[in-house]
Amino acid sequence: MATGKINVSVENIFPLIKKFLYSDHEIFLRELISNATDATLKLKHLSTIGEAKVEYGNPLIEVKIDKEGKKIHIIDQGVGMTEEEVQKYINEIAFSGAEEFLDKYKDSAKDSGIIGHFGLGFYSAFMVASKVEIITKSYKDEPAAHWTCDGSPNFTLKKAKKTTRGTEIILHIADDSTEFLEEGKIGSLLSKYNKFMPIPIKFGTKTETLPKPEGAKEEDPAPTKEVDNIINNPNPAWTKQPTELSDEDYKGFYRELYPMQFEEPLFHIHLNVDYPFNLTGILYFPKLTNDLNTQKDRIQLYQNQVFVTDNVEGIVPEFLTMLRGVIDSPDIPLNVSRSYLQADGAVKKISTYITRKVADKLSSLFKNNREDFEAKWNDIKIVIEYGMLSEDKFFDKADKFALYPTVDGAYYTFEELQEKLKANQTDKDDKLVLLYASNKEEQHSYIEAAKAKGFEVLLLDSPIVSHLMQKLETSKEKISFARVDADHLDNLIKKEDTQISKLSDEEKEALKTDIETAINNKSYTIQLEAMDSSSSPFIITEPEFMRRMKEMQQSGGGGMFGMGNMPEMYNLVVNTNHELVSEILNTKTAKKKERLINQSLDLARLSKGLLKGEELTKFIKRSYEMVK
Amino acid sequence: MATGKINVSVENIFPLIKKFLYSDHEIFLRELISNATDATLKLKHLSTIGEAKVEYGNPLIEVKIDKEGKKIHIIDQGVGMTEEEVQKYINEIAFSGAEEFLDKYKDSAKDSGIIGHFGLGFYSAFMVASKVEIITKSYKDEPAAHWTCDGSPNFTLKKAKKTTRGTEIILHIADDSTEFLEEGKIGSLLSKYNKFMPIPIKFGTKTETLPKPEGAKEEDPAPTKEVDNIINNPNPAWTKQPTELSDEDYKGFYRELYPMQFEEPLFHIHLNVDYPFNLTGILYFPKLTNDLNTQKDRIQLYQNQVFVTDNVEGIVPEFLTMLRGVIDSPDIPLNVSRSYLQADGAVKKISTYITRKVADKLSSLFKNNREDFEAKWNDIKIVIEYGMLSEDKFFDKADKFALYPTVDGAYYTFEELQEKLKANQTDKDDKLVLLYASNKEEQHSYIEAAKAKGFEVLLLDSPIVSHLMQKLETSKEKISFARVDADHLDNLIKKEDTQISKLSDEEKEALKTDIETAINNKSYTIQLEAMDSSSSPFIITEPEFMRRMKEMQQSGGGGMFGMGNMPEMYNLVVNTNHELVSEILNTKTAKKKERLINQSLDLARLSKGLLKGEELTKFIKRSYEMVK
Repeated sequence: MATGKINVSVENIFPLIKKFLYSDHEIFLRELISNATDATLKLKHLSTIGEAKVEYGNPLIEVKIDKEGKKIHIIDQGVGMTEEEVQKYINEIAFSGAEEFLDKYKDSAKDSGIIGHFGLGFYSAFMVASKVEIITKSYKDEPAAHWTCDGSPNFTLKKAKKTTRGTEIILHIADDSTEFLEEGKIGSLLSKYNKFMPIPIKFGTKTETLPKPEGAKEEDPAPTKEVDNIINNPNPAWTKQPTELSDEDYKGFYRELYPMQFEEPLFHIHLNVDYPFNLTGILYFPKLTNDLNTQKDRIQLYQNQVFVTDNVEGIVPEFLTMLRGVIDSPDIPLNVSRSYLQADGAVKKISTYITRKVADKLSSLFKNNREDFEAKWNDIKIVIEYGMLSEDKFFDKADKFALYPTVDGAYYTFEELQEKLKANQTDKDDKLVLLYASNKEEQHSYIEAAKAKGFEVLLLDSPIVSHLMQKLETSKEKISFARVDADHLDNLIKKEDTQISKLSDEEKEALKTDIETAINNKSYTIQLEAMDSSSSPFIITEPEFMRRMKEMQQSGGGGMFGMGNMPEMYNLVVNTNHELVSEILNTKTAKKKERLINQSLDLARLSKGLLKGEELTKFIKRSYEMVK
Repeated sequence: MATGKINVSVENIFPLIKKFLYSDHEIFLRELISNATDATLKLKHLSTIGEAKVEYGNPLIEVKIDKEGKKIHIIDQGVGMTEEEVQKYINEIAFSGAEEFLDKYKDSAKDSGIIGHFGLGFYSAFMVASKVEIITKSYKDEPAAHWTCDGSPNFTLKKAKKTTRGTEIILHIADDSTEFLEEGKIGSLLSKYNKFMPIPIKFGTKTETLPKPEGAKEEDPAPTKEVDNIINNPNPAWTKQPTELSDEDYKGFYRELYPMQFEEPLFHIHLNVDYPFNLTGILYFPKLTNDLNTQKDRIQLYQNQVFVTDNVEGIVPEFLTMLRGVIDSPDIPLNVSRSYLQADGAVKKISTYITRKVADKLSSLFKNNREDFEAKWNDIKIVIEYGMLSEDKFFDKADKFALYPTVDGAYYTFEELQEKLKANQTDKDDKLVLLYASNKEEQHSYIEAAKAKGFEVLLLDSPIVSHLMQKLETSKEKISFARVDADHLDNLIKKEDTQISKLSDEEKEALKTDIETAINNKSYTIQLEAMDSSSSPFIITEPEFMRRMKEMQQSGGGGMFGMGNMPEMYNLVVNTNHELVSEILNTKTAKKKERLINQSLDLARLSKGLLKGEELTKFIKRSYEMVK
């Protein structure tokens, strides 16, 4: 038997890094700036605990493009490295300097925010560079070092003349990567990945206008000066405590995150947890519009202020992906993949935590300023309703603050609704019937009829509300929802008492035959009802069950299979107590009877929005004749 | 100056592989089965060229779970390895066996379809296993070898007793990965990644029912036998030549790909190119429905029959992501990321090729069976219109087969349309005016009016058609689109001749004042026109430009900024030659005049779909009174 040690073939490591390490070549800039940030934060920490006897000052990280020389320079003013450290950290791949540092200064370093894993990240430079130089001077009193490597994997290491502390990385950009020599490209990468990193990053200079000196003339140009162009905000709002931030600060940060969003967010949720995982962030409830930017401006995921992705699928529960904002957690791996996240236990806990925080925030908004909560309801309801459908824990919480508006603009919780309606809208089987409309305009005449009977009509118009009603009907006792046009009102809320019909049974039979003959259309089921004489003579209704199943199918899933394509079924309710109906019955000429019935049917169909196209054109033509 | 060679620290390589190599742990199975496939194909190749003197037979790859022993076995019947080869291929990380093999047998191996990069892929086993064993016997006459490694990186290598050719990999599943000991989990991974791999993969057995022996009684159970459960189809349709496949084969493969899709595809496009890149595949045009599965069943990307991803963003132009099917290319890296793909030159060429193939297929469908193409138009137009908008090269080709249906169901190309309409619909400025409706029902009365004048009305109802019209108007000469309700028809297509008005200028002035007083509504601009006496007395129109800009804004981008939220603007066109209008002018009582005007306005609004809610309810009530 032989034993041995697995050997890593160095000759093959560079092509592998290029191919496997990051499939995104642009990542090199994020990695190198993370290293520079790391080196700067290390120095800060060492000077704080007195180990580095240096003036920390206000260090910068500078990114420079030398287009002619085909080079990119990344210069920091951090700890730097001695020759020995270069040997150790650079020449030994996969030796994580940051990890060692954190190990050594375990307790004091905990909050210093050191980001990266020195070592592998550095090698991502070879994804875009044919040659890489490091010129570095340690904060320790030792000469500077100059390391050069063309990725062969041979390197040279010599003394350098650099006198200022810190590290300069020089990338000699490879011929296939010259796009990274464009200022616009680097600028957009910096703004994508480094916008909120904790050390100021300088990229070129910009011209600032100064105030005019006293006594300057109107036409004199204002004086200007060149200043460093700092591309990042090292202290973004989410890294601060909620107590330090005003409402205006939160709104300001929203504009910083989404410069193309002109609508203000409705409210924010500040996330801050350090056990059992670390997570900070700010989530915003936006005003949801049809604008395509909804898709673009998504929640952004950061790891210690470094942008990771704006695809938070798996980390944030699906119903909250419509929100905006930032989540920052060192516990989320930099290179995330969806199925990895779904399996990861820490990530699941994060998702649960976020759901709970959102529910708690909504609950406190509801309790502390109900008026404001009601005013925002229409903009947030889709998120809440979706959450109630998809997460049972969220349902339990939201059930206490989810609102049900009436067509007249009053807002009730479900419990309030039960209390308010039970006297008038409980039917003879002791079931509370909740009447609703999905469209105030289209169902106007039906809403009016219900209100005339003293019923309250809810306005439930979000696209998934049919699913929510279904859920409420099964999770609560003895309640049911019915749309105002689902049937004649006396049938929707059945009471013991019955209206008396003006017509005898024989007259009813004759009337039914008359109408069936005249309309000659199988899709209407004729239903004679003794209603108030002031109710409409003809009403078209659409049974609740079938309609809701169809809607549920159309809004994706649920309902019954195949229902989405079933034809609509309508009932024609005829009010046997209406004057016009008596007139129809008593008209002797068949032609006039038919005309009366069809004109009434057209008006009923118009009321239900069913008179369209050619039939509507004909109706209008006929009506112009009648106007004259 | 010192020189040296970068050293890879082996102690750290395993955690790195676990962390960086693949963020998806489940990938290990794909990698190991790829290696097994590779080993089998190598043997096939060597036996074909006479180098391996063995019976190739019908080799299998077997995947076995030993739940109690917490092990997964992956067993192939391929080339196997000698002890020396294990030393070389396994103990030296990043030494790609497949590459060396392909180098050696360059010409003859080209088509043998060897997949992987032996070496790194194998180490993905350590993502889920705490210990890995390899028991392998080469096709060469040498003893079997047994390699064991607990990822430390120390290994042991000894002789083994295995007598059959091939390699068995045994994974001792780590405690944090026991989900991979579930049959359901492994089954679903096999079906996701290996469904179309070229060597049969056995996973367990299944019971097959045999025909009953002769003379068996009715109640006797049919005999059964246990057979290998092969989970893949080693010869999927896209690996065959189009000439080998019938229409039924293509449909069958569609069902194989998407077992949950019940609708048949409209047609398919077989992709097959080997220069300047290798690509095969089959794309399907599905019938697009509102069903959510549209999102789920996407184009799948394979690399040599190994599933990579179903996110083909970047590889397939955006407008074709609505299609379904398979693309297989060895030129696409296994670990794809979006921005990498966008930058990759080969990928850009693939995208261009696919666009061209789709355009060519559509063009040949149009030419060879126009009737069928017309019948499918409504299901495919959204893809084609979107493509015309987003890719200029596609526009140039599609312009010859894109269809413009009329409200009466005739279909014309743009060129045919120009030819057909130029005599009647060219205005006095020599511009061809294309009238269209977006909804046959809602714009019925306007359509009828246009047809009465002998005009052809197109039915353009897809959501992005306003963008397409805009593009056509700028890319073609002297044409413009106008919706039938954009203005009075004589204004939409202005001819030299003018209608004579029955009314004098004074009468017109008086009429205008009467109407303005009666309707008292700023949002209607009153426009008196001398029209046919048979045209409607009142017509409401909505100017094309404003409406189209609003629509373009609402369907995402384009149009003019802020237009999406502008209020609707309407004109009230009054036909001065209509009898009813004369009556209005001549009515003496102010009350009656007002009633006539308002009833006419209501009918005009009804015709344009503007009479809603309370106003409609009142109109209906009034009309019931008039019926009596």
